[in-house]
Amino acid sequence: MNIKLNSQRSNSLKFPPYLQLAIDIPIVSEVRNLFMKIAKITSSQLLIEIGTPFLKNEGLRKIAPFCREFFPSNYIIADFKTLDVGKLEVNIGAQAKVDACVVSGLAPIATIDNFISECKTLNIDSWVDTLGVPFYAFEKKIEALELFPDVLIIHRGIDEELSGKEYSWEIIKKYKSLVPSLIAVAGGITLENVQKPLKSGSDIIIVGRAIYQAEEPLVELKKFLDSLNS
Amino acid sequence: MNIKLNSQRSNSLKFPPYLQLAIDIPIVSEVRNLFMKIAKITSSQLLIEIGTPFLKNEGLRKIAPFCREFFPSNYIIADFKTLDVGKLEVNIGAQAKVDACVVSGLAPIATIDNFISECKTLNIDSWVDTLGVPFYAFEKKIEALELFPDVLIIHRGIDEELSGKEYSWEIIKKYKSLVPSLIAVAGGITLENVQKPLKSGSDIIIVGRAIYQAEEPLVELKKFLDSLNS
Repeated sequence: MNIKLNSQRSNSLKFPPYLQLAIDIPIVSEVRNLFMKIAKITSSQLLIEIGTPFLKNEGLRKIAPFCREFFPSNYIIADFKTLDVGKLEVNIGAQAKVDACVVSGLAPIATIDNFISECKTLNIDSWVDTLGVPFYAFEKKIEALELFPDVLIIHRGIDEELSGKEYSWEIIKKYKSLVPSLIAVAGGITLENVQKPLKSGSDIIIVGRAIYQAEEPLVELKKFLDSLNS
Repeated sequence: MNIKLNSQRSNSLKFPPYLQLAIDIPIVSEVRNLFMKIAKITSSQLLIEIGTPFLKNEGLRKIAPFCREFFPSNYIIADFKTLDVGKLEVNIGAQAKVDACVVSGLAPIATIDNFISECKTLNIDSWVDTLGVPFYAFEKKIEALELFPDVLIIHRGIDEELSGKEYSWEIIKKYKSLVPSLIAVAGGITLENVQKPLKSGSDIIIVGRAIYQAEEPLVELKKFLDSLNS
């Protein structure tokens, strides 16, 4: 692939907190229905995440321009959860003109290093997702990395979330002391508990089903956006 | 999504060894060029892998039928490298009528369990990829799993391979003693070293760039297929 530097990119994350809507719906027609309902929102505090199953089923090349149509000036994240060929997947993201690409924190150090450095080269934000990495293991890993990512996601996976284990938001502070990156938090965030991650120092709140599976997604989305500033 | 049991599936892995061609080319037009050159091969020993970057860029929904056009009776694997929402990604694979789906061995136990059990329900083979999981960690993980996968991939990632570390094929025997699954081996296999994994008990040899980046991919593919039976 011939990749050009994404020099036109104007979106960046300078004014947290943000709300990130994670689209984990695999079928583009269903996502279209959702977007028709919510795209009238023009908040610059709203980030759009192309979730992994959506990306894998429909392909980023097709999906990124589709999202951009509905959200022309929002920051868009491609949740690759990259595990290998770090550079190649960043190139796919650059080609699709997304603002950020996500590598899995479970990937080998060499992959994460290649990923972050390629993001810098191509002027895309690099995100690392800690899904499945215990804190003590991540602490060691971050020391071995050559560069810090722009954003770190503290993530409870959906399969883990459904298993009903207890969760402590206090862990956010520990991560925050470890890296200069912005901190995003994902997994089981609701209107009832959203102030906990915000007060513990989260810069980005990631919500998916709690918004798009609601009876009125637009109403729910507005409530979550309001909660950022309350 | 409405998923139906893939009851028409006739492909299975009863007569190893096999050669798996991993397509890690992200652009469908380039893959088409490759397939035009090699699709005249009708060996039932050839498996076709839809590699992760290919799947992420073009989308499995589009890519699986495209591969099936060129290889109507070959076993096709979707290399999801799933890390979360195990069931959902298997459903995407079933919908696309692939023969097998791959979950990352780095995923949480709950995800791998959900993935394998959904594969059984939907009559798709389940593969676990050990990329990035050290043997001692995998040993513990396999004990915690409810079901064994159909195939286990012993995998050196491309980023790791390029870092030049030494590799011992003897490890294959250790994995083979641990699981009843077939063993697939990936990462840096060439015509020069292919007999080593075969003699150490590999059932499936995974090769990508060594075939499709060769000057004559068809000639190279034939040589690899011949090497299975020599």
